[in-house]
Amino acid sequence: MKVLVVGANGQIGKQLTSYIQASDHLTAKAMIRKQEQASFFEDLGAETVLVDLEDRVESIAKVATDVDAIVFTAGSGPKTGKDKTLMIDLDGAIKTIEAAEKAGVKRFIMISSFDTTREAILAANESFAPYVVAKYYADVWLRNTDLDYTIIHPGILTNDGATGKITAAERVDRGEITRDDVARVILACLEKDATIGKEFQIVGGNTPINEAIDAL
Amino acid sequence: MKVLVVGANGQIGKQLTSYIQASDHLTAKAMIRKQEQASFFEDLGAETVLVDLEDRVESIAKVATDVDAIVFTAGSGPKTGKDKTLMIDLDGAIKTIEAAEKAGVKRFIMISSFDTTREAILAANESFAPYVVAKYYADVWLRNTDLDYTIIHPGILTNDGATGKITAAERVDRGEITRDDVARVILACLEKDATIGKEFQIVGGNTPINEAIDAL
Repeated sequence: MKVLVVGANGQIGKQLTSYIQASDHLTAKAMIRKQEQASFFEDLGAETVLVDLEDRVESIAKVATDVDAIVFTAGSGPKTGKDKTLMIDLDGAIKTIEAAEKAGVKRFIMISSFDTTREAILAANESFAPYVVAKYYADVWLRNTDLDYTIIHPGILTNDGATGKITAAERVDRGEITRDDVARVILACLEKDATIGKEFQIVGGNTPINEAIDAL
Repeated sequence: MKVLVVGANGQIGKQLTSYIQASDHLTAKAMIRKQEQASFFEDLGAETVLVDLEDRVESIAKVATDVDAIVFTAGSGPKTGKDKTLMIDLDGAIKTIEAAEKAGVKRFIMISSFDTTREAILAANESFAPYVVAKYYADVWLRNTDLDYTIIHPGILTNDGATGKITAAERVDRGEITRDDVARVILACLEKDATIGKEFQIVGGNTPINEAIDAL
C-alpha cells in the first residue's frame, strides 16, 4: 500500500513517513516543495515528488495516480500570514481532495484542527478564527465527497516524545498531544479500514493507540 | 419586494439602497454593522438592521425572514488583512447563503470578483490570490444551492459617476466600471427574473444597462 504524504516536510509528516517506511506493508511517497527537503526522505528509502500546493489540481493528481491513500498533513504554520491560511489550509487542502478524486484514490486521511465546528469559529480569538474557518471548509468539502475519508482532530501539538497512549472520541476535553503520537494515530488509521467515514478528536491519554482507535 | 442589502454601508451598497428606495416597487432593508452607519439609510427611508457578518448564521437568518431577496455586496476591502478576507469574503458570504436558505429567501444576488476561476487564482499575484480563493469558494457554494442566484463579476471598480452603459457577457475583456453602474446592474437584476441562474462579467461599455442585461 503506497501512501502519498502531503506536507511530508512538516514535523508530523516526517515522523509519519518514518513509521510508514518502518512498516513492512506500507511505503511512502513524500510530497515536498523544495529539492533540498528530499534527502531526509531519501535516507528513509521513501520516494519524493516536488509539488507546490499552490500549483494546480492536475499537478497534485499526477503524482497521486500510483498511490492507494493520501494523507493531508500540510499546514501553513503559525509563522506565515493569513494569506497562506487561505492558499494552503483552505485551497491546498481542497485541491488535494479534488486531486484524489481525479486520480481515483479513494482513501483520504485529513489532519484537521481540534475543533472545526461553527461554534469553534465563534469561540476562537480574532487571530485564530481565520485558521478555523479554513479548516472548517476543508473538512466540510471532504465530508461531501465519496472518498473513504477519516478526519483526525488533534489537540494542542507538542514536540515531546511519543507516549503511544491517547484518548480518542468524537468529543474529548481539550488537551495536548505529541506530534509523534499523532503520526502513530495516522499510521493506525491507514492500517484499519474501520476508521473509514470516522471523524474524531485525539489528545494524550492512557489508552494504547491501537486499542483507542479500535474502540471508536 | 423587500431586499436585504448585506454590506449596505459599502459604496455599492449605499448607491444600491438609494436606487431601491427610489424605485416604486422595491424597498430596502440595510444590514449594517454599527449604529452610527444608520442615519444615511434612515434619511432614505430604508429600514436598518445591525448584524455583524462574523456573527452566527442564525443572526443573519433572523433579519432575512421578511425579505424577498438578498444582495451580498459586502467586502473586507483592501485596507484590512487577509484574516478579514477569510472571515468576511469567504465565511461571511457563505453564512449569508446559508441564512437565505434558513429564512426561505430564494432570490440571491452575489457581487463577486471579476474572475473567480481556478485559472484566475493561479494568474493572480501573491497579494491578490487569497482574495480570489475566498470569492471562488463563495461562488462555488452558491452554485451548489437551490437558490435563485445571479452572480455578477464586475471589472475594476472606480468612483466615477454612473454612465448607465456597460458591456456584459459570460466573458468580457477586463476593464473598469463605476460602482454606481454596478449598483444599477444589481437593480436591473432584481427587476428581471430572467437573470436567475445567470453569471456574467460587467465592465463599462456602450450598451444601456437594461438592454445589456436583457441580452444575456
